[in-house]
Parts: sequence; structure tokens; C-alpha cells
Amino acid sequence: MIINEGKFQVTYRVTALNKNEARTAGEAICLEQTLEFPRDLVRDEGPLRLLARVNNQVRSGHDTFYVTIEYRDEVAGGELTQLLNVIFGNSSLLPGIRVERLHLSPGILSLFKGPRFGRSGLRKLLGVEGRPLLCTALKPMGLDNRTLADLATAYVDAGIDIIKDDHGLANQPSNPFEDRVKRVGDAVREACARTGSRAIYAPNVTAAGPVMKARAALAKAAGAGGLLVSPGLTGFDGMQALAEDDDLALPIFCHPALLGSFLTSPTSGMSHHLVLGQLPRLAGADGVIFPSFGGRFSFSQADCKGLVDGTAAAMGRLDKAFPMPAGGLTLSRVPELLSFYGREVILLIGGDLHRTGDVRAAGREFRRLVEA
Amino acid sequence: MIINEGKFQVTYRVTALNKNEARTAGEAICLEQTLEFPRDLVRDEGPLRLLARVNNQVRSGHDTFYVTIEYRDEVAGGELTQLLNVIFGNSSLLPGIRVERLHLSPGILSLFKGPRFGRSGLRKLLGVEGRPLLCTALKPMGLDNRTLADLATAYVDAGIDIIKDDHGLANQPSNPFEDRVKRVGDAVREACARTGSRAIYAPNVTAAGPVMKARAALAKAAGAGGLLVSPGLTGFDGMQALAEDDDLALPIFCHPALLGSFLTSPTSGMSHHLVLGQLPRLAGADGVIFPSFGGRFSFSQADCKGLVDGTAAAMGRLDKAFPMPAGGLTLSRVPELLSFYGREVILLIGGDLHRTGDVRAAGREFRRLVEA
Repeated sequence: MIINEGKFQVTYRVTALNKNEARTAGEAICLEQTLEFPRDLVRDEGPLRLLARVNNQVRSGHDTFYVTIEYRDEVAGGELTQLLNVIFGNSSLLPGIRVERLHLSPGILSLFKGPRFGRSGLRKLLGVEGRPLLCTALKPMGLDNRTLADLATAYVDAGIDIIKDDHGLANQPSNPFEDRVKRVGDAVREACARTGSRAIYAPNVTAAGPVMKARAALAKAAGAGGLLVSPGLTGFDGMQALAEDDDLALPIFCHPALLGSFLTSPTSGMSHHLVLGQLPRLAGADGVIFPSFGGRFSFSQADCKGLVDGTAAAMGRLDKAFPMPAGGLTLSRVPELLSFYGREVILLIGGDLHRTGDVRAAGREFRRLVEA
Repeated sequence: MIINEGKFQVTYRVTALNKNEARTAGEAICLEQTLEFPRDLVRDEGPLRLLARVNNQVRSGHDTFYVTIEYRDEVAGGELTQLLNVIFGNSSLLPGIRVERLHLSPGILSLFKGPRFGRSGLRKLLGVEGRPLLCTALKPMGLDNRTLADLATAYVDAGIDIIKDDHGLANQPSNPFEDRVKRVGDAVREACARTGSRAIYAPNVTAAGPVMKARAALAKAAGAGGLLVSPGLTGFDGMQALAEDDDLALPIFCHPALLGSFLTSPTSGMSHHLVLGQLPRLAGADGVIFPSFGGRFSFSQADCKGLVDGTAAAMGRLDKAFPMPAGGLTLSRVPELLSFYGREVILLIGGDLHRTGDVRAAGREFRRLVEA
């Protein structure tokens, strides 16, 4: 529990036509997110001390203000769930408010370990310096686990660094979890031994808390080198628990499943910077998967840039995470993607590697394009 | 794990200008939510078997279709997290798709116990038949726990049935959890013994999984008669774990914190029916708190009606939950609220009971208005 005098700040995008409206909206957020009580009836010193305050407001266009609100660290009660509650719990129910950015205090940041590996740790683990990292997904669901393991072998042979489960692979009858991680874990280990690769397999362990913990332990025992988690399904606290588990000590890859509803409106929800940058880092993600501009989804270049900034923005001693653009990317777009994302990126191409029917050759082409 | 031939259906609201567009959008959802793989490259029987299919599409207005998609039970892998993933994981990232309604199969429904008490069980527990139930919140944060306990005493005296923590009370230095539940638990027990009331105290236990479990056990030991959980913060699986814990066996009240971003757009996210009706029931909520029309928030009467329908819609043997309208309601609105919501409701009024400075008298007035 934090007992300090620290304060953290949150910047909200507020729809308002003038400074007074923005101020009023900001003060409503202050009340809603702390005391949740009629302002005129708050008379006691204790609650008044905890009431948030508007720090500043900056106009940005005709009907838009960025309002920064200051909260006492202690209202977050020393835990991620309550921190999220203070940031946006009730205000998420109001239209015209979007959370843009967190400016966390040393006290709040001290609650989190952040990415265990981070960008440099992941590079060291994989033995890759000087080029972007490569990732692919085992898919589609319904292929038997033996076939998925064969795919994994081909991807290691091709020189891909991270082989993850499709996020839709859970523990279905078609692809039971324990059998899958054993088969794919073995395949990746054998291929690495044969080729000298240090590729890792990251199975999807997303599930209810205790089940997820058990699956992560099974995965580790089967030789998995990373874990895929969808915090939209488990809560960010679920991801944090895995990331901070020293018995696992594995890189964590964050999948955006079910987080999309925070992101589809420019005037409500939360920013890409926050949802797929700052929050996953707080919860310990070493890499954050997202649908890149130009794929099947609708993120803009600005959305992607905001997100990438969030994976690297200064957050105390918290390490940077890797952005992992994905979502229907094709080999033909690799040069364009590299020119946009630069070198500090993990490119994730899944389905397109199946296009020619020879995934090994397609994987090699992926590696060649990234090294070019 | 489900190994059966069952199928469940999900109805999506899709923005489309004609039947062909709607069909195409529906087929994209089928692919996205199961195989997530280029359609033309799916050749194997295993994946093809798992591909969802469009069941029907119904036009509703100029650019809106309701598209119902049929999934095999087995893709949900026997667990809530993967069920949510199949329903909306990736498609949440696409604009113009809103999940409206679940039509679950016996196989899927058999995975869930649903509300342990339900409407009739909660009435029995509280000894209240023939009138709406009354709920209030202990607030604001920052009042010391002794004062919160005094408020609880006054509310029991006044004849209020359910006294819950404000959802912003977590484990802050101002209101430490264990001390709070002991003080308030004692106060409610003593007042009940003195007055013959069967009122219950429902503390907020929302936290990371293992912490929440520990807090719930502390709460139960301190005499709490219910638990408040925000599944938007913990994941719906966190609520399900509490609800299905036979050592607790307490009514669960669902708070909508952080769920708002699913609800603010009419064309994206998920419906009120689903988010604050069907899903909390799957996860075992006996009562669902929501910001009623006409309060500080922006739910319409239609939103509220959809939600109330979701708390009662046929879902196999799953019991009904109570709708709990809240969010800045006032005593003066009680008659209007009762005429809208009817008798099968828990009215939740918090701050307004402090308006006159005499919460006991205000609580009595609340009870009188509901009995009138």
C-alpha cells in the first residue's frame, strides 16, 4: 500500500466548445473518479483531501480540449485494478471523454516491475542484434497439433525468431493445450538444436486466473520460451501476475483481443498509446501485438505511431516493450513497414506465409526481406 | 471441455448499405472469429469444420443489418475467456460491428452456474416480497471507516436492504479493506439484531484474482452478506470465480466500472443487453448496477430496457438477475423509476440520501416512497 504524498496525472481528451465547458467537464471527471458524490455535499476534510483537481487544459481544435487531472497516489490503493478504476472506471460510461496518456508518479511506478526482458533483454534472449525481429503464428485452429508442430519446425528452419500460437488456440478438442505445447515445444527445441537458432515458442495461455497459471507452468515445462496473453479477456491484472511470476520468468506477448472497443472511437474510450503501449508495459508485456495500418483492420498511421510511442515513452525505470505490427500483413509490405516502424520492431506475419503452399520458403523470404 | 456437436449463435449489428455488403461483413466476422486465416488458403477439413457460418441477416433501417452467426460449441473450448474471444476478440478492433445478443446452446450454458441466488433467492435471503428492493452506497471515499460504519447503521435503521461499498473503496490508506469490512460488518449485524432487519453489507472486493479471493474470504468472515465486483477491472472470469465459490456462497453485485467503452457507440462495442445483462449472468451476478436514464450518465430508456431484458432473457436454467438502476438518482425520481422499472428491481440511491444532512430520515423516506 502506498502511504505517500505523491500525485499522478492523467490527460483526457474532452469534447467541449470553450474553456469553461472544458473546465466543467474536467471538474466532473475529478469528482466522478474519486468521491463520486454531489460536490455541494462534500464537507469533510478526509474526502476533500482525496478529490482530484484539474491541473491544466489545452485547446486542440474546434471542440477538443486536453485536460490533465491530478490524483493523489493513495486513491489508487497500491494496485492495478484500482488504478484503472481511478483513471476511467465510471467516466468510461460517459461519451465525449477519452483517456490519452498517463503521467505516473514514482510511487505508482514502484508498484510495477514492467517488462522483465524489454527490448534489449528480448534481443539478448534471441541472440539477435541489428535487425528487426520476426514473428509468426501457428494457425488456423483445427489443424491437428502434429501439423502445427511441423509448421513450427519449418518456421525455425526459415529463421523466424518467435513462433506464437494463434490467439484463437485455447484448449479446444481440436487442439488440446497440453498436447499442443508438448508437441510444438519439442519441435522448436529439436529444430533449434539442429540449426543453432534460438527461436522461441510462445503458446497462448489466456484463461481464467488459476487455469492460466497452470497452463503457463505446463508451457514452461514443455520448453516454451514466451507466453501469449490477451488482457482484454483476463484483465490486465492477469497479465501482470504472469509477468511478475519469477518461477516462469518468460517474455510476455500481449494480444489485443476484446480491447478494440476502447479504440474504435476518437472521442471515447482510451488512446492507442495507453491501451497498447503504457498499460501493457505496466502489466509486464515485453511485446505488444496490434493490427497495423494497411492490414485488415482500421488503425491509422497516427494510431500506430501513438502506440509505438507508448511502448517506449519514459515511465520511470520500466523497460521498453517491442511493438509487434500484425493483422493481415503480407511479405510484399515488409519494406514499407520497416520504413515506417524502423528497426526496433517485431514484424508479425501469419497467414501470408501460407500463400505459396511452401511455408519454409515463405519464412526464408520473410527473413531475407527483413535483413535486406 | 465440450466435445459435442452443439452450436451457439451470436447476433451482430453490422453497418452495411445492402444485403450483399451485410453478407460479406458477416462472412468476414465468421473468418476473423474462428480461423483468422485467408479464406482462399483454407483447404484442410479440420479448420473448415470450425469455420463459423452466417445463419441469417435482417435489415433494420437504411444502413443497418442484424447478422446472426453460428459457431460450433467446441471453438469456445469450455471456458468463458475463450467464449468472449470467439464472440468479439478480434472483431472488437473493427468499427461498424456491435454484438447485440447471445443465443447460447445447452452445451455452452452447462459451463456456467449463473446467479446463485437470482431474483427469488435474493428476496428470500433478504426476507422481502412484494416490493422493489432498496440499495445504497457507503461513500464518499476518505470518510473514515468508523463514519462509514455509522452510516451503515443508519441505513439499516431506515429499512434499506442492501448496503454496498462505493465501487471506489478498495484498500486505500484512508479506508483500509480489512478494518472497513470488520467495522461495517459489525455495525450491520448489530443494527439487524436490534431492528429485526435482514439487511446485508456488500463490500467491494474488486482486485487481482488471488487478492480478490482473499478479500472475499475476509469479507465473509466479517459477516458480509454480498460482494461487489467490477468485472471490467478483473475480467468476467474473476467474477465467475467468486460467484461459483461454494465456500463463499454470497450474492454477487456487478458494477460497470470500465465497461463503458463497450457501450458508448451505437455502432461499435457490445449492447447493454449483453454487457450488463447476459454476460454478468453467465459470470454469476445476482444484481447488475447501471447508470439509469435521467441520471448523471447518458443511457437512454431503450438502453435501460435492453439491459433489463438481458437480466431476465431465457438462458437455459440460468436464473434471472436483478437490474439495479443507479448513477445519480434522487428520491424525487422514485415514482418515475418505479413506473419504468416495475417491481422486480433494486433501486440504488447513494449521494442524494445525504442531501438534507439526515441520512436516517432520507433512508426512511426512500423506503416509504418504494412502499407507496
